[in-house]
Amino acid sequence: MALYVLKFGGTSVGSTERIESVANKIIAFREQGHDIVVVVSAMSGETNRLLALAHALDTQPDPRETDVLLATGEQVTIALLSIALQKRGCKARSFTGGQVRILTDEAYTRARIREIDDKRIRQELADGCVVVVAGFQGIDEEGNITTLGRGGSDTSAVALAAALKADECQIYTDVKGVYTTDPRVVEDARLLRSITFEEMLELASLGAKVLQIRSVEFAGKYKVPLRVLSSFEDDPGTLISLEEENEMEAPIISGIAFTRDEAKIVVSGVPDVPGIAYRVIGPVSDAGIEVDVIVQNVSADGTTDITFTVKRADCEQTRQIIGRIAKDVNARDVTVDTKIAKISLVGVGMRSHAGIASKMFKTLADESINIQIITTSEIKISVVIDEKYLELAVRSLHSAFGLAEEGNA
Amino acid sequence: MALYVLKFGGTSVGSTERIESVANKIIAFREQGHDIVVVVSAMSGETNRLLALAHALDTQPDPRETDVLLATGEQVTIALLSIALQKRGCKARSFTGGQVRILTDEAYTRARIREIDDKRIRQELADGCVVVVAGFQGIDEEGNITTLGRGGSDTSAVALAAALKADECQIYTDVKGVYTTDPRVVEDARLLRSITFEEMLELASLGAKVLQIRSVEFAGKYKVPLRVLSSFEDDPGTLISLEEENEMEAPIISGIAFTRDEAKIVVSGVPDVPGIAYRVIGPVSDAGIEVDVIVQNVSADGTTDITFTVKRADCEQTRQIIGRIAKDVNARDVTVDTKIAKISLVGVGMRSHAGIASKMFKTLADESINIQIITTSEIKISVVIDEKYLELAVRSLHSAFGLAEEGNA
Repeated sequence: MALYVLKFGGTSVGSTERIESVANKIIAFREQGHDIVVVVSAMSGETNRLLALAHALDTQPDPRETDVLLATGEQVTIALLSIALQKRGCKARSFTGGQVRILTDEAYTRARIREIDDKRIRQELADGCVVVVAGFQGIDEEGNITTLGRGGSDTSAVALAAALKADECQIYTDVKGVYTTDPRVVEDARLLRSITFEEMLELASLGAKVLQIRSVEFAGKYKVPLRVLSSFEDDPGTLISLEEENEMEAPIISGIAFTRDEAKIVVSGVPDVPGIAYRVIGPVSDAGIEVDVIVQNVSADGTTDITFTVKRADCEQTRQIIGRIAKDVNARDVTVDTKIAKISLVGVGMRSHAGIASKMFKTLADESINIQIITTSEIKISVVIDEKYLELAVRSLHSAFGLAEEGNA
Repeated sequence: MALYVLKFGGTSVGSTERIESVANKIIAFREQGHDIVVVVSAMSGETNRLLALAHALDTQPDPRETDVLLATGEQVTIALLSIALQKRGCKARSFTGGQVRILTDEAYTRARIREIDDKRIRQELADGCVVVVAGFQGIDEEGNITTLGRGGSDTSAVALAAALKADECQIYTDVKGVYTTDPRVVEDARLLRSITFEEMLELASLGAKVLQIRSVEFAGKYKVPLRVLSSFEDDPGTLISLEEENEMEAPIISGIAFTRDEAKIVVSGVPDVPGIAYRVIGPVSDAGIEVDVIVQNVSADGTTDITFTVKRADCEQTRQIIGRIAKDVNARDVTVDTKIAKISLVGVGMRSHAGIASKMFKTLADESINIQIITTSEIKISVVIDEKYLELAVRSLHSAFGLAEEGNA
């Protein structure tokens, strides 16, 4: 008998009909003889409805009270799911984050989990119950209600799986799992059967938004096998785990992530002196703007170019900040380009295989696609290109690395 | 500096606009220098919305999970009201029933309060906060969420007032207070400035549904002065307290309650033997039907008539039950009359004043209204009459006892 933590997101529990189909799924799984803890999100739309009420009263509602408000969303779902399970003859009991003592810090609206007391849950499991826990929420040491921020239910599920030493944490969502790339762009994108935590982190942060990044970090840290799968289809989905597949058969590249919501800023002709990167990037970060790619080339004439990307939504504010400091740092020129896209090849196999980068560059060159920026990490190569070539580039790379075929790269 | 517990019902907090006006009312009150604890209900309509979700899954949803579900209604309101108060510069903190340890028994959906720990609330008051508490809910000893049943927020407010030894508990509602009778029937019905707990209990249970009966019992037991007043108007409303007004000026009759939702059943010609009343009424009570007035006349010929009233909605079921037992008890006849009304005069002054009953009977006789049943208690006289004379009877009595004039009877 194994212990599973199953997490169902807002879309999966978006109506009473869907809650009933989730209940049926849980019961079928339970009949295989497993102990089951279920973590649920608020019904889709509920969190936004509640926030709209708060914002009608204050555009910046008090964070503590916002958490008291939002925590009701998941509380509604745990009750409804438990009612549906019991109606079907399955013993079930619901618990809020506070009731199972998901202890967090005091950072309202973005709290971090510190500790989970597994005693109550173990009691209920021993009593033959399916335990239904509200995701996204906890309590601090003073008993105040806290929430973990958007997507926090994934983190709740992984944290519970870690605390209970569960055999697997399954995240049910509205996609079948993690694909080699976005199926809307590449028709023969393939569903990955397995992927490592590291790869998933690179893919998730680069735009394949299947799982909340924090939950993947958490799962990796506590070695909780994590599975992403569809609430609506019968498919084992993608297993995210610590183990790299057998090297002999393992693909070198797991997937291709891309994003087109960034903008590129080039600050050119600045003196190539120590601290210059900080003087340029510092004020942008200080304004709370997240800077993604940063590259600085070696200089020839005593000056250098600093190039970086930010979210397109932050582009105008960044332009103003850089405009102000350009004179201070004696920049020759500042250019902004919003028509860019970033593509990343991700795969742990890169570590032991040479030639991946050059194969990537050749593939793009063959399509006459100019590369504007290159950055690399141990398991990822990213390039920034003109946005209009994005689909062409992704399709060519997907095909060149043989990602459509099982076990190839 | 006094300590007040203010309770706002679902209509008073039915929209964000109304929550804002409640916040303004609280702040104005606070500026008089008082410590304030606020108890709120779910926004009007919310409890029914949640129940509809549960009923879509199960016509008889599990009581424990129903309480987890319904408790979210008040939790939303406490957060929103606290946000509105803070927006206006007033320090405020919200608490669920569980957070301030409103400890109840385990009777889900109709739990009774056992104990309240006032420590946390006193801390917050000392810290200069308005304390906003979710009504209607508590937790049992195991930490399960419980609710007190419909109207339970009134009880929460009174219980908190008792635990905190508050100077007054104010129940804000959509009426101005307690009237001498229903203003829709008698145009010059007068708003009572004060009334005793006993009188309020008789008036409330007889149909003037301003306050939940349980909360009045509770307030009487713990000697908490209770005030009913309007959320929407500036008026001191009605004070319900232990003290009878100065006898010299006190009115003998406080009010006239009436109901037309009952039916009368007469079981006539039954043998006048010990146990007969039980044999007739027992099966009706056993079926969960609430029997209101019961009268049995002294017999002359060895037989007697037993007359009782039930809610009209239960009339058909009662008729069937009595039909079955009529033969067993050798009843001569069973008649059912749904066209009746019950009128009650209520007043603690009756205790020390003779002639109230005869004045009542004369007033009705003067209008040629026949009295079908009479019952009396220490502070109440009730009569059952033909329904069509109800308005005429109430108006005549209201006028005969001078209820429209302050301090008269």
